[in-house]
Amino acid sequence: MSLLVIGSLALDTIETPFGKAEYTLGGSATFISTASSYFTDEVRLVGIVGSDFPAAEIDFLKSKKIDISGLEISKTKKTFHWHGVYHTDMNQRDSITTELNAFEDFDPVIPEKFRNSEFVCLGNVNPEIQKKVILQLDKPKFVMIDTMNFWIEGKLPQLKETMKLVDMMVINDSEARMLAEEDNLLKAAKKIFAMGPKMLIIKKGEHGALLITKELIFSVPAFPLETVFDPTGAGDTFAGGFMGWLAKTKDITPANLKLAIVYGSVMASLAVEKFSLDGIRDLSRGKIMKRFDEFRNLTHFETVSL
Amino acid sequence: MSLLVIGSLALDTIETPFGKAEYTLGGSATFISTASSYFTDEVRLVGIVGSDFPAAEIDFLKSKKIDISGLEISKTKKTFHWHGVYHTDMNQRDSITTELNAFEDFDPVIPEKFRNSEFVCLGNVNPEIQKKVILQLDKPKFVMIDTMNFWIEGKLPQLKETMKLVDMMVINDSEARMLAEEDNLLKAAKKIFAMGPKMLIIKKGEHGALLITKELIFSVPAFPLETVFDPTGAGDTFAGGFMGWLAKTKDITPANLKLAIVYGSVMASLAVEKFSLDGIRDLSRGKIMKRFDEFRNLTHFETVSL
Repeated sequence: MSLLVIGSLALDTIETPFGKAEYTLGGSATFISTASSYFTDEVRLVGIVGSDFPAAEIDFLKSKKIDISGLEISKTKKTFHWHGVYHTDMNQRDSITTELNAFEDFDPVIPEKFRNSEFVCLGNVNPEIQKKVILQLDKPKFVMIDTMNFWIEGKLPQLKETMKLVDMMVINDSEARMLAEEDNLLKAAKKIFAMGPKMLIIKKGEHGALLITKELIFSVPAFPLETVFDPTGAGDTFAGGFMGWLAKTKDITPANLKLAIVYGSVMASLAVEKFSLDGIRDLSRGKIMKRFDEFRNLTHFETVSL
Repeated sequence: MSLLVIGSLALDTIETPFGKAEYTLGGSATFISTASSYFTDEVRLVGIVGSDFPAAEIDFLKSKKIDISGLEISKTKKTFHWHGVYHTDMNQRDSITTELNAFEDFDPVIPEKFRNSEFVCLGNVNPEIQKKVILQLDKPKFVMIDTMNFWIEGKLPQLKETMKLVDMMVINDSEARMLAEEDNLLKAAKKIFAMGPKMLIIKKGEHGALLITKELIFSVPAFPLETVFDPTGAGDTFAGGFMGWLAKTKDITPANLKLAIVYGSVMASLAVEKFSLDGIRDLSRGKIMKRFDEFRNLTHFETVSL
């Protein structure tokens, strides 16, 4: 089933303790759409890049059967560029440069043929843009938004307006606490439900993620890895795997939401094993299922009574 | 099967945002032995208390069928007393008072009839004492030690001597990193294996725990609770549930180690719902199994292939 993906496309320069990549493909929409492309052939991308965006990367997106008819190419500006340097423990990073460039003008007009999209994944952008996108659509079945502290601090009223229109929100633990003004994550989830979303994914970085709905709490760990090469895009890859699985199965029952968050975690764990997008550029079904099985072994136990 | 428990018995004064309890039963050996008593009737306790230790609490331990022949009662000193105040977020606490009292003289002589104990749980005490205990035993089947930053910083050579004699170590994540001088937990585990233990439990507080052996990595979340009343003793209760299950089943295969860590997490989650020991003073088999089932729902997913 169709999945509409909105967000940034970027050329990132990334430094981690393991190396450096310059002007490498990044951005939330890139990670989301690439990750979800392993689950459905109906990924529809809306974004903006600059005149410097490599033709080879356009071809890459096409090779993933991502429909890029909604990709605007600015003639006058360059592609969004971010330069980040990770600390030794990889949980912290410094932003050296953030040049919005063409992304500054991002005001997406959803192509007519995308307006019937059934699943919608709105990457972490200005909540006013997220809202404008939703209002262009014909009754989507399931809308998820990502957000961040920057919008919670700077655009809270606008974010709250957007939240009224969505089914699910993905947010990290410190941001959930900030948005709800509540330390306990379950209580925070209840407060966020009162703002609109019926479901919540709380990302906890190296500690995994929680899926919370009104009927369900489900916990998935991050996959323990000896070497995390580059955490850039892990959260977006997670969202892409999650939404890809939902779009593939067209099923938002609790049991299937659990599977979706596992597939999201599988994709994120594969992404961080290599630099930038490299971990998910060319995956086989077998490699994804091997990691899925590893997640099951990591979390499942027999039932033997006391 | 028999489980020998060594550690502190204390009278604690605890303040959390939810209330205050004064001179309430605490100490690592108390939590470990009480938690494990739900799994085996052969819990053997070795510890020391003062002349002020309430007779009613002696009766409580006996009511749990804990063999207290190894409990020394000092005639001249009071019971170990700790006064702690938790911060609003409960992940931090200040120690107001730590009066060792009788515990200062703790130099356990293992009663003759306890020396054949098959499972041994050495609570977080001076590693020299842990070693002296182990050397008094007749070839135990499985020895686990707990430790903390205080001993890693102050008694590292002694701790390393003790580690050569144990099967498993339980340690929190920051302490594992400190002991191994390594940020990545899997790499840290390998370094700790080289020091002696063949198995490791890394506790991550509100993020659960990892079981790591040379063949296995298993992740269990902490049970999400809206209200954590009092985290005191959670780690010891976890260790008690873990060792209690092993002693009950006499089985240290990977599948059963997974079950043990789940039962440990079940007991810890029940402990923190009330003040000090109250959460595990009087549990039914049904209440334990209900939480076990909730853990399964929290972590298990179907297997549906991509």
